[in-house]
Amino acid sequence: TKTKKIAILPGDGIGPEVMAEAEKILDVVAPRYGLSLEKRRANVGGAGIDAEGKALPDSTVETCRWADAILFGSVGGPKWENLPPDEQPERGALLPLRKLFGLYANLRPAIIFPQLKDASPLKPEVIGDRFDVLVVRELTGGIYFGQPKGRDAERGFDTLVYTKPEIERIAHVAFKAARLRDKKVTSIDKANVLASMVLWREVVTGVAKDYPDVELNHMYVDNAAMQLVKNPRQFDVLLCGNMFGDILSDEASMITGSLGMLPSASLAEGSFGLYEPSGGSAPDIAGQGIANPIAQILSAGMMLKYSFGLSEAYDAIYQAIESVLAQGLRTGDIMTPGCTRVNTKEMGDAIVRAL
Amino acid sequence: TKTKKIAILPGDGIGPEVMAEAEKILDVVAPRYGLSLEKRRANVGGAGIDAEGKALPDSTVETCRWADAILFGSVGGPKWENLPPDEQPERGALLPLRKLFGLYANLRPAIIFPQLKDASPLKPEVIGDRFDVLVVRELTGGIYFGQPKGRDAERGFDTLVYTKPEIERIAHVAFKAARLRDKKVTSIDKANVLASMVLWREVVTGVAKDYPDVELNHMYVDNAAMQLVKNPRQFDVLLCGNMFGDILSDEASMITGSLGMLPSASLAEGSFGLYEPSGGSAPDIAGQGIANPIAQILSAGMMLKYSFGLSEAYDAIYQAIESVLAQGLRTGDIMTPGCTRVNTKEMGDAIVRAL
Ligand SMILES: CC(C)[C@H](C(=O)O)[C@@H](O)C(=O)O
Ligand SMILES: CC(C)[C@H](C(=O)O)[C@@H](O)C(=O)O
Repeated sequence: TKTKKIAILPGDGIGPEVMAEAEKILDVVAPRYGLSLEKRRANVGGAGIDAEGKALPDSTVETCRWADAILFGSVGGPKWENLPPDEQPERGALLPLRKLFGLYANLRPAIIFPQLKDASPLKPEVIGDRFDVLVVRELTGGIYFGQPKGRDAERGFDTLVYTKPEIERIAHVAFKAARLRDKKVTSIDKANVLASMVLWREVVTGVAKDYPDVELNHMYVDNAAMQLVKNPRQFDVLLCGNMFGDILSDEASMITGSLGMLPSASLAEGSFGLYEPSGGSAPDIAGQGIANPIAQILSAGMMLKYSFGLSEAYDAIYQAIESVLAQGLRTGDIMTPGCTRVNTKEMGDAIVRAL
Repeated sequence: TKTKKIAILPGDGIGPEVMAEAEKILDVVAPRYGLSLEKRRANVGGAGIDAEGKALPDSTVETCRWADAILFGSVGGPKWENLPPDEQPERGALLPLRKLFGLYANLRPAIIFPQLKDASPLKPEVIGDRFDVLVVRELTGGIYFGQPKGRDAERGFDTLVYTKPEIERIAHVAFKAARLRDKKVTSIDKANVLASMVLWREVVTGVAKDYPDVELNHMYVDNAAMQLVKNPRQFDVLLCGNMFGDILSDEASMITGSLGMLPSASLAEGSFGLYEPSGGSAPDIAGQGIANPIAQILSAGMMLKYSFGLSEAYDAIYQAIESVLAQGLRTGDIMTPGCTRVNTKEMGDAIVRAL
């Protein structure tokens, strides 16, 4: 048995509710793969502000440093919306965590489970039989962190900057991921307007030489925003800088129509990573025990796969979810006529049983 | 009779074909409103490169300076795709034209004609009965033109900068447009990450005080990319900086499913403007006489409205198009079973008759 340490940061809104279900799944799955998990909990987001005065309290950073991976819930809510941007739960917790832990590679799968095809806002003939796109987003560079950045009453400015090693590093992640999928990378840029994106395109083209088995295309970000709506199935892996990835991954996830199903991983070099649902803290339904825990459960699954090397554990969880969906169980967000409505805990329990 | 001078820049691909139909419409409509049009033609894009060695030849700039408005076709095609970015037809013509003529306000309507509802990739219940969104995009500032900007082999960078007057100017355009529509402005930013966008939000909020009859909302760009897919009808006017407007206007136009129907206007202070279809030069069907001329015709209509003050002329053209669609006439791009397929010229002729 090997032991791994995880920091559990449930956060706000539905975060604690769905986290409880993810922990339940981990408790069942980990031992089967010879893994013993040591857990510590910490405050983050609004919960951090309320308890310790900061969206990312120092004690939370310490807990994360102690851990081998972070399982993150979700943060934010109306209570903290009027704080200055820097102090708000989302920005104040996520950006420093990404930077402090070097979480440069953000993997955002946009997957439609066959049972949930009807949830997509796109027509059935547009979305087709199978939709599985992976957005690989650079997460610690670009215009998010570039200096100088500032504002006064008359002028505001930000710097979009990328270096060759930063681009190479994220491009390798995308090509490696594509190798395990449909072997197609679409690199997103705006090389017709931005100098940084001319470099981006060149460097990605260079990295592609190491992956002759993977097909590389380049696409302008504006065209990609169109193509995702027009013909989303043309994509396999989308490789994006920080800002374009922010926009396109959200668009891609909405195309699935079931945000409550989508996990994400933010990886550092080595095996450290932060795992969180793609959706938000859903304050409107928080505390009612009705949120969909699947995104959080799949996030825990991604942690087992990427930080602890247990691909099969991820697959087992994924299949358990598929079988529960096939049984017709649905939380409110994915409910359709003829299915059985369940609450957060019932969904978690059903997945445990299917395991 | 007043006389106005227009520069006609047909460009590449389907540009010349659809321009011929737009000119036909202008020849019929202008005299009815007491307008005499003096026209000069000039090369632009690939046509400029081939004939005069540059995407925007000096002689073309002269013709535009002479004119009261520019009617632009479309530019680009595989022949010029391997030129350096700066010299390519699209970038090499459009960006300098915007800057030289101070075309700061880009209006991009995304409209679904009731007869073409089925063309949208979105489900009928998502798109609803009426879809009419106007993207107001700042076009001469932001990261497109901000300095410094550059690259070497190791590093590439761009600057996103906005000043208070730049933001005020475009915000007024959006609020004025909203007044004539559904009185709702959604201002797009990324104020949770970008310093320039914190200023953007503040300045837009300030301008809103002059328009108490218009409702203002702020939305992050990533959320907007989602909401356009999830519930596009919530929007009336989207107010965006240059880059976010580039992305979201393309997404919004694809939601209509009929790019061949969408015009755009790029306005300077005063009455000068450039008018062009939202779609591209469609090299795949160029020369066949089958392209949809409606976007180009509506662009000519926008010119009559915004540069020459003839709102009613625009409305007349719009209604003629609606009646032709109601007759069941369709070019190939918008063809559906039961309708009558027509070519470029037949569509133009039908609109002339309907006028
Ligand atoms: C909250 C915000 C800073 C963040 C981002 O822009 O990266 C969020 O939108 C995300 O995508 O994780
Ligand atoms: C061709 C390109 C420079 C241009 C832009 O990015 O503005 C185009 O995409 C547009 O939207 O008009």
